[in-house]
Amino acid sequence: MPREVRERQMLDAAVAGFARHGYQAASMDDIAEEAGVSKPLVYLYLKSKEDLFTACIRRERAALVEAVRGGTGKSEVPGARAEQQLWKGLCAFFAHTAARPDGWSVLHRADTQGEPFAREIAAMRAEITELVTLLLARAAVDAGCDEKFAEREVSGLAHAMVGAAESLAVWANARTEAAPSPKETAATLMNFCWTGLEQMIKGARWSPHR
Amino acid sequence: MPREVRERQMLDAAVAGFARHGYQAASMDDIAEEAGVSKPLVYLYLKSKEDLFTACIRRERAALVEAVRGGTGKSEVPGARAEQQLWKGLCAFFAHTAARPDGWSVLHRADTQGEPFAREIAAMRAEITELVTLLLARAAVDAGCDEKFAEREVSGLAHAMVGAAESLAVWANARTEAAPSPKETAATLMNFCWTGLEQMIKGARWSPHR
Repeated sequence: MPREVRERQMLDAAVAGFARHGYQAASMDDIAEEAGVSKPLVYLYLKSKEDLFTACIRRERAALVEAVRGGTGKSEVPGARAEQQLWKGLCAFFAHTAARPDGWSVLHRADTQGEPFAREIAAMRAEITELVTLLLARAAVDAGCDEKFAEREVSGLAHAMVGAAESLAVWANARTEAAPSPKETAATLMNFCWTGLEQMIKGARWSPHR
Repeated sequence: MPREVRERQMLDAAVAGFARHGYQAASMDDIAEEAGVSKPLVYLYLKSKEDLFTACIRRERAALVEAVRGGTGKSEVPGARAEQQLWKGLCAFFAHTAARPDGWSVLHRADTQGEPFAREIAAMRAEITELVTLLLARAAVDAGCDEKFAEREVSGLAHAMVGAAESLAVWANARTEAAPSPKETAATLMNFCWTGLEQMIKGARWSPHR
């Protein structure tokens, strides 16, 4: 069996094991057994539990970012509104996290497993936030908004949106009954924020004194 | 000097040290020196670095939750709209995280320092999400919304809002110049979400096909 096939089997088993038991409690014996290989082979290929976990994070991170970029890219046609790209990107994000709950669980919980892993997640978050910032800035400029808005508020909004999406994906995957579909979850977030964002772009502001 | 005063000094020094260097790299020697006490006294009072960090998390968690509850409680007068309570709660949250950046840094980064600490943070997040869920559900019912909405969508919205607020607080504290005031940050989030939320409560829905 070619090495890449064996490695993929090991990573599949590792993602499942880490998602089920957490990084500390997952056992290398179980992961090897689940992958149908010997434990020494796992160590030969992936070196250590830490390296195996890092490899899992990197694979799942790349898959998630690719899914989101694919989603936003689908609307990358002349005249496509940033709003549609954001919608497609959110649909792709929630479809991916719903289809790969173990991968999302590994990514989401890697944050809690110490600095080297948390750094991987911070880099992923920064990558997605940058993409969302670009989309929101384009939406603002499309709507004839001045650049000060794009510089100052869009960055905050992008962070808010990514934080909200992350929390919603955890919430959606944790629901055992009446779990919303990925599109429903994406629509929840669009409902939640797009109307407000659209108003902001037009210059309207919420006020505590209204 | 009474024990509680000494303990407070140790916790103040520890929060500053953990915020500056992170949990792993912070030194017990430096924390003791900063607190103006001997290292054995720190161990006598707080037992271990892990217990000291846990004590920091618990103190900062209690202070943050109290600040947010205080903010939402201020509008707890007959006829106060949930919208105003949410606004006051957000203002209190961002004022607190801006005034105690070290405390917020400890809380925010504790998530990355292993399961026991991450559990404390998860419990804090659940506590605040519950408060936000109640406020949103009240707002929905105030607006004459049926209970199905309150059950299903409000829970997702509360998670989205808490995730967004967390991300925004990190973003605001990281800005070295032109840092927004707590009220500006709170208004960013209200602008972002309230109009959308208000529309949702009224039954309006965002649609990809409009």
